[in-house]
Amino acid sequence: MRIVMKFGGTSLSSLEHISRVAELVYSKAAKGCETCVVVSAMAGVTNQLVDYVKRSSKVYDAREYDTVVSAGEQVTAGLLALMLQQRGLEARSWLGWQAGIKTSDTHGRARISSIDGSRLVAYLETGGVAVMAGFQGHHPETNRITTLGRGGSDTSAVALAIAIDSDSCDIYTDVEGVYTTDPRIVPQAKKLKKISYEEMLEMASLGSKVLQARSVELAMKYAMPIRVLSSFKDTLGTLITSEDKDMEKKSVVGVTTTKDEAQITVIGILDAPSIAAKVFSPIGDAKINVDMIVQSTSRDGRVADVTFTIAENDLDRTLAILNAKRDVIGFEDVHADSNVAKVSIVGIGMRCHTEVAHTMFKTLASKNINIKSISTSEIKISVLIERDYVELALRSLHDAYKLDEE
Amino acid sequence: MRIVMKFGGTSLSSLEHISRVAELVYSKAAKGCETCVVVSAMAGVTNQLVDYVKRSSKVYDAREYDTVVSAGEQVTAGLLALMLQQRGLEARSWLGWQAGIKTSDTHGRARISSIDGSRLVAYLETGGVAVMAGFQGHHPETNRITTLGRGGSDTSAVALAIAIDSDSCDIYTDVEGVYTTDPRIVPQAKKLKKISYEEMLEMASLGSKVLQARSVELAMKYAMPIRVLSSFKDTLGTLITSEDKDMEKKSVVGVTTTKDEAQITVIGILDAPSIAAKVFSPIGDAKINVDMIVQSTSRDGRVADVTFTIAENDLDRTLAILNAKRDVIGFEDVHADSNVAKVSIVGIGMRCHTEVAHTMFKTLASKNINIKSISTSEIKISVLIERDYVELALRSLHDAYKLDEE
Repeated sequence: MRIVMKFGGTSLSSLEHISRVAELVYSKAAKGCETCVVVSAMAGVTNQLVDYVKRSSKVYDAREYDTVVSAGEQVTAGLLALMLQQRGLEARSWLGWQAGIKTSDTHGRARISSIDGSRLVAYLETGGVAVMAGFQGHHPETNRITTLGRGGSDTSAVALAIAIDSDSCDIYTDVEGVYTTDPRIVPQAKKLKKISYEEMLEMASLGSKVLQARSVELAMKYAMPIRVLSSFKDTLGTLITSEDKDMEKKSVVGVTTTKDEAQITVIGILDAPSIAAKVFSPIGDAKINVDMIVQSTSRDGRVADVTFTIAENDLDRTLAILNAKRDVIGFEDVHADSNVAKVSIVGIGMRCHTEVAHTMFKTLASKNINIKSISTSEIKISVLIERDYVELALRSLHDAYKLDEE
Repeated sequence: MRIVMKFGGTSLSSLEHISRVAELVYSKAAKGCETCVVVSAMAGVTNQLVDYVKRSSKVYDAREYDTVVSAGEQVTAGLLALMLQQRGLEARSWLGWQAGIKTSDTHGRARISSIDGSRLVAYLETGGVAVMAGFQGHHPETNRITTLGRGGSDTSAVALAIAIDSDSCDIYTDVEGVYTTDPRIVPQAKKLKKISYEEMLEMASLGSKVLQARSVELAMKYAMPIRVLSSFKDTLGTLITSEDKDMEKKSVVGVTTTKDEAQITVIGILDAPSIAAKVFSPIGDAKINVDMIVQSTSRDGRVADVTFTIAENDLDRTLAILNAKRDVIGFEDVHADSNVAKVSIVGIGMRCHTEVAHTMFKTLASKNINIKSISTSEIKISVLIERDYVELALRSLHDAYKLDEE
């Protein structure tokens, strides 16, 4: 049995917490598991370091950002190795450049290109516990440290699990698993025993903070089972795995929300097939993600409006880009609204349950919640609503789809 | 002109301080100097990390200690590079393993075996400012981070200056240079314009905290001039260089003290030529440094006492070793006294001034300060006295050798 155990910052927020993590790892390793642990930085440390970087340089060099910020995981990896040694285990820390975690050179959000798992496997086979600094990698050509973007330790853990052919990748967090919705908003939220990669991917992209979406994508590609577990309670958690064909599927497994969005409306563009390209090319060039696009044509067919959403902290930049390109695009006006939120329902079952969308719209209407925009995929429906109604929407939808029932 | 500038933790204790350092570096680089900067961790950070390590594991693995503790310099190197970029300079951080700083694998107190300066020189020649994380190196065979011991950044700086053939190695500190004695104790203390390597080596070994002795040793070996300067005030500082043959030498250049010593007396050892070996072999095996050894024979010549000093924090270990070997050594009793301090006078001039020792003993006697032990070298005389009298001894000796005069 070979396992990867990943611990986030809240599980490592003090020496006492790290010591508890050491106990948990010890209990697995003592049973004879070949154990590789992936750690984040102590809670708060990464934020502190990011703040230092931002205060040091306005337009910061992402290579130096990575050098500074990766120091947090280096510390926890060393400390956990020490605590495991203190319990009589053979253990050592591995940094990204030591473990052969090769990435692209897109600093600050690098992608893993390959992991040479052989050194780690050789070490595990001698009975050692490998403690990996998460979130970091190495670009071999420049010999510099890279980081994988916020939440990147989840991706480190899954990639490592694949590279060393682990039996599973266990993500320990401060919650007990993946829930049907945010339990802080809807107390009836239920922990899911199992969820498919596809559903989890939508949940993660749409605001469930449990896992970084990239890590789920990677696990899906290599069919690596992920278990989401609590660092603090010994409960079963949630298994994320391939879709179970025989399982009697609920149509909807979860309801999620994101509040960090803003809606932009570009008004009075002269209608032509090239509208979308004109509006979205400069925004795309600035690497700003656009979502929930709606194009509406005026009654006389001569001018059109385009509405779309972006991340709220891209709002100022997006407006600046649009105004700079005003003459090229040729529009009358532009409106922005950041008092919005996206609410989504997710479930593979909705592929063959046509009434799912109808239930969603009916439920929101019955609460007088106005839908500003809609976007759908095969396994999710998202609506944009006024931010004040998020909690009400979540509770009503959770009820409507009976997510509190087994 | 190529220079190395080294900044310690108190010069880097906040972003505001680091920014001031960036100004200083900028002023040199803007004049066209090829500039390599060596940085310590922010003041307090290394102590915090060491504390974490000690609390994580009782008998800690020095390899993990190095992984954890080296993170501090990684952060400041990145931040200073960012601040230099912010001022329009080309700059980048270099960690030990990136710059090719090869060391032994004696983790926690590694010795530099070689530095491949070619990469740094190539970078400097493109006009870039290289910001090196001090204190750290790399053992290539194990591919692990090493550290050079407390104060190791001084040694990093000198070694680097030698490797890149720098014109000088400038050590910026929170004092204005090397003083005749500690100005906090003797307000009349004077800053030295110049001091020889040999004298500085004794000063550093004997308690002057300005520089790590190892760094002076290294600079002497390669005749690399060191300048000790203030990070905060634009003054001339002290030049440490080869002995100036033509200079009219003062007999004594400085008076120093160390208070972290303890004296042990082993009483009633059966007198034989092998006494010293019996007493000091087990202590040496435990890597404990012994100093100021005095052996006295009893009147009837049958038994002897041996007195010596050690670092105070080695006291418990030393006593334990002696008591464990009591039967082998064959002694009657052992006494320990940590209420002692060493006071030393240093100066190349004393080689040919025979009255120097006499002046020291006479001065201390006139103040009723009892000398417990004496040790001498060609250019220093040290005496062990009761700790309470340290300040009085320093002041009196500073006066006696007229160190307050030009």
